[in-house]
Amino acid sequence: MASKKSRDLLLYTDTSRSSDALYFGQVEMHDPFIAFALRGKKYTVVSALEFGRVKRTSDFDVVLPLERAQEAARAAYPGEDATPARVISALLKELGAGTMVVPEDFPAGLFLELGKLGVALEIATGPLFAEREVKTPAEAALIREGNRCSAAGIAAAAKLLKSAKVSRGRLLVGGKALTSERLKVAIETACLEAGAVSLSTIAAGGDQACDPHDRGSGPLRAHQLIVVDVFPRVTASGFFGDMTRTFLRGRASDAQRQLVAAVRTAQLAALKTIRSGIPANAVHRAVTDTFARLGYETKHTANGSVGFFHGTGHGLGLDIHEAPRMNATSDRPLKRGTVVSVEPGLYYPGLGGCRIEDIVQVTPSGPLMLSRSPYEWEFN
Amino acid sequence: MASKKSRDLLLYTDTSRSSDALYFGQVEMHDPFIAFALRGKKYTVVSALEFGRVKRTSDFDVVLPLERAQEAARAAYPGEDATPARVISALLKELGAGTMVVPEDFPAGLFLELGKLGVALEIATGPLFAEREVKTPAEAALIREGNRCSAAGIAAAAKLLKSAKVSRGRLLVGGKALTSERLKVAIETACLEAGAVSLSTIAAGGDQACDPHDRGSGPLRAHQLIVVDVFPRVTASGFFGDMTRTFLRGRASDAQRQLVAAVRTAQLAALKTIRSGIPANAVHRAVTDTFARLGYETKHTANGSVGFFHGTGHGLGLDIHEAPRMNATSDRPLKRGTVVSVEPGLYYPGLGGCRIEDIVQVTPSGPLMLSRSPYEWEFN
Repeated sequence: MASKKSRDLLLYTDTSRSSDALYFGQVEMHDPFIAFALRGKKYTVVSALEFGRVKRTSDFDVVLPLERAQEAARAAYPGEDATPARVISALLKELGAGTMVVPEDFPAGLFLELGKLGVALEIATGPLFAEREVKTPAEAALIREGNRCSAAGIAAAAKLLKSAKVSRGRLLVGGKALTSERLKVAIETACLEAGAVSLSTIAAGGDQACDPHDRGSGPLRAHQLIVVDVFPRVTASGFFGDMTRTFLRGRASDAQRQLVAAVRTAQLAALKTIRSGIPANAVHRAVTDTFARLGYETKHTANGSVGFFHGTGHGLGLDIHEAPRMNATSDRPLKRGTVVSVEPGLYYPGLGGCRIEDIVQVTPSGPLMLSRSPYEWEFN
Repeated sequence: MASKKSRDLLLYTDTSRSSDALYFGQVEMHDPFIAFALRGKKYTVVSALEFGRVKRTSDFDVVLPLERAQEAARAAYPGEDATPARVISALLKELGAGTMVVPEDFPAGLFLELGKLGVALEIATGPLFAEREVKTPAEAALIREGNRCSAAGIAAAAKLLKSAKVSRGRLLVGGKALTSERLKVAIETACLEAGAVSLSTIAAGGDQACDPHDRGSGPLRAHQLIVVDVFPRVTASGFFGDMTRTFLRGRASDAQRQLVAAVRTAQLAALKTIRSGIPANAVHRAVTDTFARLGYETKHTANGSVGFFHGTGHGLGLDIHEAPRMNATSDRPLKRGTVVSVEPGLYYPGLGGCRIEDIVQVTPSGPLMLSRSPYEWEFN
């Protein structure tokens, strides 16, 4: 732990691009900024515009004014512009820094410029903060909070669907067609009121839902499966929730009911396998075995795939997708404290798509649910 | 133009990190993906999960399945994992590619790995798509649409403030304290309903507003200046709006009225200078000259700055902050078609903060307003 903390690091990015930068400084920054760890202390260099806020609210030990650092760079490199590379180089030399570790996604242009200026850099192999994969109880609570927001969005969707009138196969609310767009506004408003921002919300019906990343558009239809996937980010913490339910307003066919039941059965089978130490692909296999047993085939064609053709789950935290992945190829054992989604799905154009997703934390004795929302799905 | 279009480019990022990637492929992608231009054709490599959507909705000429590209990488590098570097290398070799230009923010780790695999890369000097700075009429219309969403948010804030009751210096709505948080939910809900997502909305009163990037928190007070800065992103297009108004519920002091009048006077002075060909810092100087003439001093102290201590404006488009910058140091002439914010402000703890911001497109004859919202600010 001590050696990890004393590793000298350099970051140059903004916190909307890099959750590592958010994790490191615990403060939002919308423009690229300089941040580094040197001999166990966290430094940042920010403009007058950000100075007060960062000094007051961030986790940085030392907050330096960019304007003064630029002056120092101009003094160190007379006649040259105070570019980020020269500012970083002048500052690190002044502080007597040695080799700095940078993340894999450090900007290549800056990497080469710093090299030319004599700054020794080493690219991290793997994640910069590997400890982010295992969530502390406080972090798990923040993800649970994210899922409380997801559940608020899902509940808003369910409420709106229940309130819809079925008229000749169409869904009407307030006399107007209930569209994917309207459903998404209702979901996202509920998330906002719960304290989170939901981007790229999915509310897709019919064949649209068979393309798992189609966000959905246009009028929703009665008697069709509607996939609602809500992954909001809590504004106060930056942590995500992620939850999917599949609904139907009207009357489901037997084939639709069997499809939904199969997905829920697969989810329960996956949940049953989860505990620390189990390889990630064993969880995935529980899903594929269930679908195979129930006769749901997966096929890849030139125009796309049908059946089950995505991973069973992914880690989440300050990123919506982070380590570990639970798919066919990842045989890494799940670590205790990891938080993952469990989200099997089946997609058959003509019949429809269904995905059910919850979030759990991995413990030695099994999965601890971090999301809670009803599984009722057919609204007659 | 022809040579620009036929430049061979390589990107590896996601569209929430890189508006260049969004501009290039015209499709949202939430995980890092491979995209390149080769001999005038745009290629991408995406997983089964994204394949259908990308093929149907993107601007890519060739959409390749990631799973097949990974197989090819494993064949080209037997016994090795199909990492992004090997997938890219195998594919570019198969296609007979030469040197690929990558953006300055290309991931350094991948840059070095590709180098080791023999892929020739060259880092772009300056922006990858310099043409993004000058907005086409269609793009200007999308920014105007962004500002229609900003204006919806600003109007929601004004409405809520007007509806507040003043009770012993406090603002109450529905019997409860009107907080920055409540004001932001009202603003962001209005933006959602208008078709945009507003992140990091600012609704800050009193001394909080003197720190221009403080988002605001806690109860808002009567008789205090409240800065409301709304920069939503239109969901359908990815383009931003950006608008700031400063409000006061209750009765303003003479000093507050003079402050607001000074900021508006400075904004009008800046707008008067704007036309294509004028250096960006001449616009900024119109603001600083106005403030100097009216007796508003700027000072930098160890605990932050007071007065006017940020730039007058910034370009915006698919990024909230993009070229050009209009500040004291940028002497680059404004290009015809550029879209910039004009947002002078004054900040004095004790008295309060005020910022007024609109968006214009630069034309040879002056600024074309792309935002519209009333300037009424004192709600008695």
